[in-house]
Amino acid sequence: MIQLKSLALEADVSHVMQIRLLDQTLLPHQEKWLVIETAEQMIEAIQSLRVRGAPLIGIAASLMLGKLALEKTTTSELLKIADQLYEARPTAVNLMICIDRMKKVMRENFSIDNTVQSAISIFNEDVELCERIALHGAELIQDGDQILTHCNTGGLATAGVGTALGVIRFAHQQGKKIHVYIDETRPLLQGGRLTAWELSKLNIPCTLITDNMAAHLMSLKKINKAIVGSDRIALNGDFANKIGTYSVAVSCAYHHIPFYVAAPMTTVDVHCLSGDLIPIEQRPSFEVQGVRGSFGEVNWAPAHVNVYNPAFDVTPASLVSGWILDRGVFTKKDIENKILKEL
Amino acid sequence: MIQLKSLALEADVSHVMQIRLLDQTLLPHQEKWLVIETAEQMIEAIQSLRVRGAPLIGIAASLMLGKLALEKTTTSELLKIADQLYEARPTAVNLMICIDRMKKVMRENFSIDNTVQSAISIFNEDVELCERIALHGAELIQDGDQILTHCNTGGLATAGVGTALGVIRFAHQQGKKIHVYIDETRPLLQGGRLTAWELSKLNIPCTLITDNMAAHLMSLKKINKAIVGSDRIALNGDFANKIGTYSVAVSCAYHHIPFYVAAPMTTVDVHCLSGDLIPIEQRPSFEVQGVRGSFGEVNWAPAHVNVYNPAFDVTPASLVSGWILDRGVFTKKDIENKILKEL
Repeated sequence: MIQLKSLALEADVSHVMQIRLLDQTLLPHQEKWLVIETAEQMIEAIQSLRVRGAPLIGIAASLMLGKLALEKTTTSELLKIADQLYEARPTAVNLMICIDRMKKVMRENFSIDNTVQSAISIFNEDVELCERIALHGAELIQDGDQILTHCNTGGLATAGVGTALGVIRFAHQQGKKIHVYIDETRPLLQGGRLTAWELSKLNIPCTLITDNMAAHLMSLKKINKAIVGSDRIALNGDFANKIGTYSVAVSCAYHHIPFYVAAPMTTVDVHCLSGDLIPIEQRPSFEVQGVRGSFGEVNWAPAHVNVYNPAFDVTPASLVSGWILDRGVFTKKDIENKILKEL
Repeated sequence: MIQLKSLALEADVSHVMQIRLLDQTLLPHQEKWLVIETAEQMIEAIQSLRVRGAPLIGIAASLMLGKLALEKTTTSELLKIADQLYEARPTAVNLMICIDRMKKVMRENFSIDNTVQSAISIFNEDVELCERIALHGAELIQDGDQILTHCNTGGLATAGVGTALGVIRFAHQQGKKIHVYIDETRPLLQGGRLTAWELSKLNIPCTLITDNMAAHLMSLKKINKAIVGSDRIALNGDFANKIGTYSVAVSCAYHHIPFYVAAPMTTVDVHCLSGDLIPIEQRPSFEVQGVRGSFGEVNWAPAHVNVYNPAFDVTPASLVSGWILDRGVFTKKDIENKILKEL
């Protein structure tokens, strides 16, 4: 099985931990691993999307705390850094849940070993969560399915096989003949750069499109399912995900195409009652005025043009056909019965 | 009034005609006028989108025939060139209607003068058609409207003030406080490059977004109308327009937002009964794998990734709230009553 890990850990737990991140801003043309030494470097890597994907940023931040503990950082300093990491990006709840879990250990049961083990557990658990999501989700995929996905939700976004892309990967491994349509996912092109790269490496048949082609393909009956990931799921089943996800959901509803969200339980925010309460990160104008990355930098819009650039949008539960979680696939009825609170 | 002409004509009709085109592939960073001397140059300019916009390519091609007639090209040669121009791009019917009109003159009533005058009439008529569209359409716009538009439909796409953008321009001139959201319009970024440039020049308040943000903005009630242009309108009211238009129409329908198409009668194809009969131009993969223009060239997708790149899509009449034509604004009922056949 091809591993598409984007986070590597080398740890002799009693002595030293080295965290390496595949710099995702440089993909697909350059595969460069960064050694992350300090909290500042980790925060920069999260904010600039060198490391990205809701599950992965939570894991990376937790490992940072483990590494700093090993390096004999004081508890009070660790807690301060934990708060800085917590605030690195506002929308993905996994980051907050992971940091809260680390803080609980550091506060209630601090030892270097406990802190490190807690971070490593978060890493290992995500691998397992991804496997379970992929197994449950793959049951929904049928031979001949033509599946739309948005953004990147694979081995680059998690410690494991991914969420939505993990489902697709398992279905493909089960021998189902599927074809994936990849939304390029403007403005940061996670689909065009990262998902296209992952699916190519995995030899899964796929076609890259611009985001505005998805509805047209649905009208031509070239897409019969859509699966996306999530950065935060509210208790009522509403969820935040990469900008453009809502547009996919609306188009699926209009064309009566099943629309699924796949995520680990660490993406469910039990303190968030509905999607309108999820904070949406606003990002800089230059991301919409052009593109920049390892592939180069160009700006095509007139300078000073006013730009709106939310990183995420919220899709209401009413548009979701099923929530593919590590505990199973849940229906609207399950969600209405408050299943997310009980899990 | 600021003129945003992208086609200039200097003619001493009995002697010489010079056709100059503003190279739209170089906008917004470079305003370079091309002198078009030969039919080959004109065909290249149309195919590479140096000159674009359904009305404008019909006008430019007609003027080319006028120029060649002035230069004493034989009728049989002119008719051959007319056929080559006719086939330069397949979707916009204006090109075909204009060329057919020129061919009729050349076949039935040929003289150099008639050919030149016919081309100039096509140019002048478009200016008038645009004015009428803008006047009718502006009546639909209210103070405070927040209007989404897609692609470019202004002075760059026509010989006059434009179609959808002409409506917006007139409403603004009438003193209505409006705000325009501009879809960047991947892959060729006619919104991000051209519409952003035109609206900035006209001082009309606007915000540039990526195409996948439109539905999200609708859910936030930031958009309350959408107006687009068209490359071909079928008799049943279905119409082809820039890829992504259908996605806008679906999102408008879902959010109960009025969705209008604005076009001159030269965009109506009386020989086309419904939208599924409109041929859709497929364009090269590199347009989706990256971007290129005067602003530079970058490719972010993995090489060899499979791409789908239709230049247009078809929006069914069922999703259209009104057809803003030079003869007036028509309703679904008008269209069902075959008004397009009678005009």
